[in-house]
Amino acid sequence: MSDLAGRVKASERRALAKAITLVESTRADHREQADALLTALMPATGNALRLGISGVPGVGKSTFIEAFGLLLLERGHRVAVLTVDPSSSVSGGAILGDKTRMEKLSMDQRAFIRPSPSSGTLGGVAEKTREAMLLCEAAGYDVVIVETVGVGQSETAVAGMTDLYLLLQLPNAGDDLQAIKKGVMELADLVVINKADLDPTAAMRAQAQITSALRLLPTHAHAAPRVLQVSALKAEGIAPLWDALTAQRDARIANGSWAAKRREQSLAWMWERIQAGLRQAFVAHPGVAERLQAATADVREGRTPASTAARQLLAAFRSS
Amino acid sequence: MSDLAGRVKASERRALAKAITLVESTRADHREQADALLTALMPATGNALRLGISGVPGVGKSTFIEAFGLLLLERGHRVAVLTVDPSSSVSGGAILGDKTRMEKLSMDQRAFIRPSPSSGTLGGVAEKTREAMLLCEAAGYDVVIVETVGVGQSETAVAGMTDLYLLLQLPNAGDDLQAIKKGVMELADLVVINKADLDPTAAMRAQAQITSALRLLPTHAHAAPRVLQVSALKAEGIAPLWDALTAQRDARIANGSWAAKRREQSLAWMWERIQAGLRQAFVAHPGVAERLQAATADVREGRTPASTAARQLLAAFRSS
Repeated sequence: MSDLAGRVKASERRALAKAITLVESTRADHREQADALLTALMPATGNALRLGISGVPGVGKSTFIEAFGLLLLERGHRVAVLTVDPSSSVSGGAILGDKTRMEKLSMDQRAFIRPSPSSGTLGGVAEKTREAMLLCEAAGYDVVIVETVGVGQSETAVAGMTDLYLLLQLPNAGDDLQAIKKGVMELADLVVINKADLDPTAAMRAQAQITSALRLLPTHAHAAPRVLQVSALKAEGIAPLWDALTAQRDARIANGSWAAKRREQSLAWMWERIQAGLRQAFVAHPGVAERLQAATADVREGRTPASTAARQLLAAFRSS
Repeated sequence: MSDLAGRVKASERRALAKAITLVESTRADHREQADALLTALMPATGNALRLGISGVPGVGKSTFIEAFGLLLLERGHRVAVLTVDPSSSVSGGAILGDKTRMEKLSMDQRAFIRPSPSSGTLGGVAEKTREAMLLCEAAGYDVVIVETVGVGQSETAVAGMTDLYLLLQLPNAGDDLQAIKKGVMELADLVVINKADLDPTAAMRAQAQITSALRLLPTHAHAAPRVLQVSALKAEGIAPLWDALTAQRDARIANGSWAAKRREQSLAWMWERIQAGLRQAFVAHPGVAERLQAATADVREGRTPASTAARQLLAAFRSS
């Protein structure tokens, strides 16, 4: 493990890929090795800007990430792209897709693209992606992009593991409302209207509409999100966007909220995993397992109060 | 216990009050008695319309509930009013306050008013209120109003235990935005603009604004919420409001969503209590307790990955 840790820190791509495969494994011995590896690498983590990106299908996410990633490489950064997609086990993985859709970025040695873990619940996929993010940081990638296709609650999971969250929007009127309805707009630190070149008037109108819609939403902890226009295809507006992101980062580092958010995220992650583990142990417990179905039916049909059923099941769990 | 159950079912007010005190107790032997009592009474529960009501201080909640409750008594109903207020332990309880602020209602034998349990977390207060609600149903109250003062997430808790949720609003422009910002508007099945008589023009404007604001929100599972005007002080608009509520109820009973929602609520309640119980057992476990502080510090400061810390703590919990 210490050899692998050393090679990850030396930024060997193969070692990084192998390390990520290790943290994705569900085998108990792999899991132990992964924990040892992660713990060894922790001092080398935390130095990247962690950027979440989401947007509906068709918004041009891949084209955007390619244009954005290439600009970052040009500026001397090293970029890792990870994906949270709990549906990828259904669709059969997206390795080929990811590399094809970001052709230039994937061919560059300073970029690292890794598709979503191909199985698991959102909680499990998110955990593996978080760990992959730490490994990428240890390997010296100083911008880690975590993108999501917006399945279920994946946007919330991605916002919970990144420093800044960028929402891609199309320049049409209905789109912004969808994002508000899904509660995704609330997560955004920055809203980007992509394909702005196709219809500048619509893009301008969308910018105004989204800006005014954002006023309806809960005050953001740090700053009201800005709305910018870009054309990823023509690589227009990408540099100003990067400037806006780094300005937000610098302001938050200066006022201490950057580090505070990371501490909160880590603790929330720990408790989320504990809760998931407790629930797993609970339903797997023989005494609970033999009672759970009947208790569920009793509660559902109003024969037992929910709180009484909960107490009885908890008592069965404890008496082992 | 079977004596107390019989007296609750016979609608003895003292027995009901005693039964609620029993479910509110934290003593283990009381808790066992309470579970036995609740289980015995379950067949007699479920027959009330469970109505959640919230609104900011000053909106006239007590005046509204008094006017609304008196109309219901007039129509032959029996009304119970419960409160979810996790802050009441701080303010020292509100028994006197509740009875004073709903003077006529509290003096009527067909009404039953019970203040919030005076201690505990929101989860604990909500659980006791849910159980009190079941006891009121068993005692024959066919409309149970659960009101909340809007502390923390109490609106969500109340919406999670009631059939219909009514949001009281003032006839001014800023108010509706507050409710949207807090995510409370999304819970409402009906929005009521109180004090509409004070400034009919403002009330009309508020009605239009809130109606249009509601279009921004996630589609309600059953029907878009209606916005009505009332004057609780003059008892105006209360009867049309009751008609609107019963129309919603009848439509949902007809399409099956009424019963489905209750089943979902009961199961969600059971799992919420299980999760809370597991977490409680977890932090109280000696092996966890001795490691938790150090693990929390390690995760917070980035020395241990959150997922690794979670696994180690879970391992400590299991090895007892």
